[in-house]
Amino acid sequence: MTTPSPAPARPALLRVLAGETLKRPPVWFMRQAGRSLPEYRALRAKAPDFISFCLDPAMAAEATLQPMRRFPFDAAIVFADILLIPRALGQDVWFETGEGPKLGPLPDIGRLADNVEASVERLSPVGETLSRVRAALEPERALIGFAGGPWTVATYMIEGGSSDRSRARTFAYEHADRLDALIEVLVEATTRYLVMQAGAGAQALKLFESWAEGLSEDLFERLVARPHAEIVRRLRLARVTAPVIGFPRGAGGLVETYAGTVDVQAVALDVQAPAALGRRIQAGKAIQGALDPLLLRAGGAALDRRVDQLLEQWGQAPYIFNLGHGVLPDTPIAHIEQTLARVVRD
Amino acid sequence: MTTPSPAPARPALLRVLAGETLKRPPVWFMRQAGRSLPEYRALRAKAPDFISFCLDPAMAAEATLQPMRRFPFDAAIVFADILLIPRALGQDVWFETGEGPKLGPLPDIGRLADNVEASVERLSPVGETLSRVRAALEPERALIGFAGGPWTVATYMIEGGSSDRSRARTFAYEHADRLDALIEVLVEATTRYLVMQAGAGAQALKLFESWAEGLSEDLFERLVARPHAEIVRRLRLARVTAPVIGFPRGAGGLVETYAGTVDVQAVALDVQAPAALGRRIQAGKAIQGALDPLLLRAGGAALDRRVDQLLEQWGQAPYIFNLGHGVLPDTPIAHIEQTLARVVRD
Repeated sequence: MTTPSPAPARPALLRVLAGETLKRPPVWFMRQAGRSLPEYRALRAKAPDFISFCLDPAMAAEATLQPMRRFPFDAAIVFADILLIPRALGQDVWFETGEGPKLGPLPDIGRLADNVEASVERLSPVGETLSRVRAALEPERALIGFAGGPWTVATYMIEGGSSDRSRARTFAYEHADRLDALIEVLVEATTRYLVMQAGAGAQALKLFESWAEGLSEDLFERLVARPHAEIVRRLRLARVTAPVIGFPRGAGGLVETYAGTVDVQAVALDVQAPAALGRRIQAGKAIQGALDPLLLRAGGAALDRRVDQLLEQWGQAPYIFNLGHGVLPDTPIAHIEQTLARVVRD
Repeated sequence: MTTPSPAPARPALLRVLAGETLKRPPVWFMRQAGRSLPEYRALRAKAPDFISFCLDPAMAAEATLQPMRRFPFDAAIVFADILLIPRALGQDVWFETGEGPKLGPLPDIGRLADNVEASVERLSPVGETLSRVRAALEPERALIGFAGGPWTVATYMIEGGSSDRSRARTFAYEHADRLDALIEVLVEATTRYLVMQAGAGAQALKLFESWAEGLSEDLFERLVARPHAEIVRRLRLARVTAPVIGFPRGAGGLVETYAGTVDVQAVALDVQAPAALGRRIQAGKAIQGALDPLLLRAGGAALDRRVDQLLEQWGQAPYIFNLGHGVLPDTPIAHIEQTLARVVRD
């Protein structure tokens, strides 16, 4: 055909983040890139270690794009890791296969603070990844940048790896001033990292607070809600207009307070989120979530029923279809296809 | 003095469970008996294993009473374990020091169902413990019996021990009928166990649903709320009038639905519970909770501040002061004393 094509539509994800309700919600999955895909496993095998992989823009861009070729996702999310920040701030971080992340001793907070400016330079490969992905991605599909929430990152920095966070929570009680100083360093480093990502092509930004669970209301306010609000405030001061998705995973009843006090444009909900709670949040902003990754892996008619239920309970207001946590590595690809066929049936 | 003493006051715990607001709330702590007390550790060393200890009425009664001698708690809770039920139903259960509980393969559900009637007889030592404690305890201090919630007990039965519950949740999706049958067996066995406990002297009953966390709303309704409602219904049919405290730990925003749909007389809240959510529940029934056990262990001025905050935020309506989870084994006794001195200052 020789007629000029119309201007590309604004990505559905961005429309919902601006408050629109779409006839069918945009969809993407946390960890849509990664170990559930055979092409990812083949690519990953070419890098000596996980951090080198994340910081190689060619490989990270390819990993970001792999699920976009296979599935009709409405958004890509840059392939990276929340622990790139502590590494860029000067703490040792490495990954042991099958054991998850390991971190060296927590450096002096003053020394971490001195490294904030340099940390953004060390994270510049993530910017290069974003530029490459944005250039390769169709204009109607959005590109998401992200960082870990300061508290979640701090738990890894304090505990030296994955944990039940009891040492970090005890630290919050026994060394309140030191923890508050660490959170402030992370708020500033995270803001600068996200400013860089927005400049490199990220059209939306997500804060993954993976370990918001189990915090009392006063700790949640101090360690999660206030730092998130501060990051958003500093992003806007830096003239970053990209919408922000906040994900206080496990915040339970506190997610509503979060939605009401933190100026994010969407709240990502975890598996547990009640339908009514989601609808109350939708009165003010978009929500995202919250299919159980275990159900995605299990498949079957129960999966279809739950997908339909989520579309029905939240689809009448600004809604982004997603999981309540990341895709599990042993999830059959056929179940991802089954789910997407049900969401994207226009 | 030679004047006759007045009739003993009704235990404060029971008054609050009947809907009264007391000037100072009754107080007890989950795991107030146990490893945090040196006298418990000395007693426990006399039994060959943990299950024998729980099923020895003399030792279990002594363990129940130890904290009552030391501290001004308003209630004792019978020393027992939620895994006595699967054992009584015919599944192997044992405890390995430092590793927690271990369970043998899940028996055929039909065989478990056949054992429901016999299971109560096998649990009769717990009744004997209750009788001994009730006889020894001052009349103004209440005695609480308990059982695990059916879903929590089922997770141990399916997973063979402590876990992240992902196998049990997957089982809920892939073998829905078998799980529903297992839950029904546990509902009936739990009801009969609690009826026996009430007959033996328990004046209030608590359902510990320790692993309510991470369930989607539909699974929570099916595996937690409905079974709890059914246990309470069957208790009342069996003419048990003892009030029931439900503890759906980690239920997050779903705890409000639970409070509205399950006819328990109090809802125990976990560490995360927002003040406002607790107050909404108090409009209909008592609440209990929710001091962070990590803060109790940490101590200091932060502990005092939080105790005052809890008393202030919830003390104007039916409230039982407690932790949001059990006392940690390495909690200093001085911190328990510090907390109780603040709650009980009349």
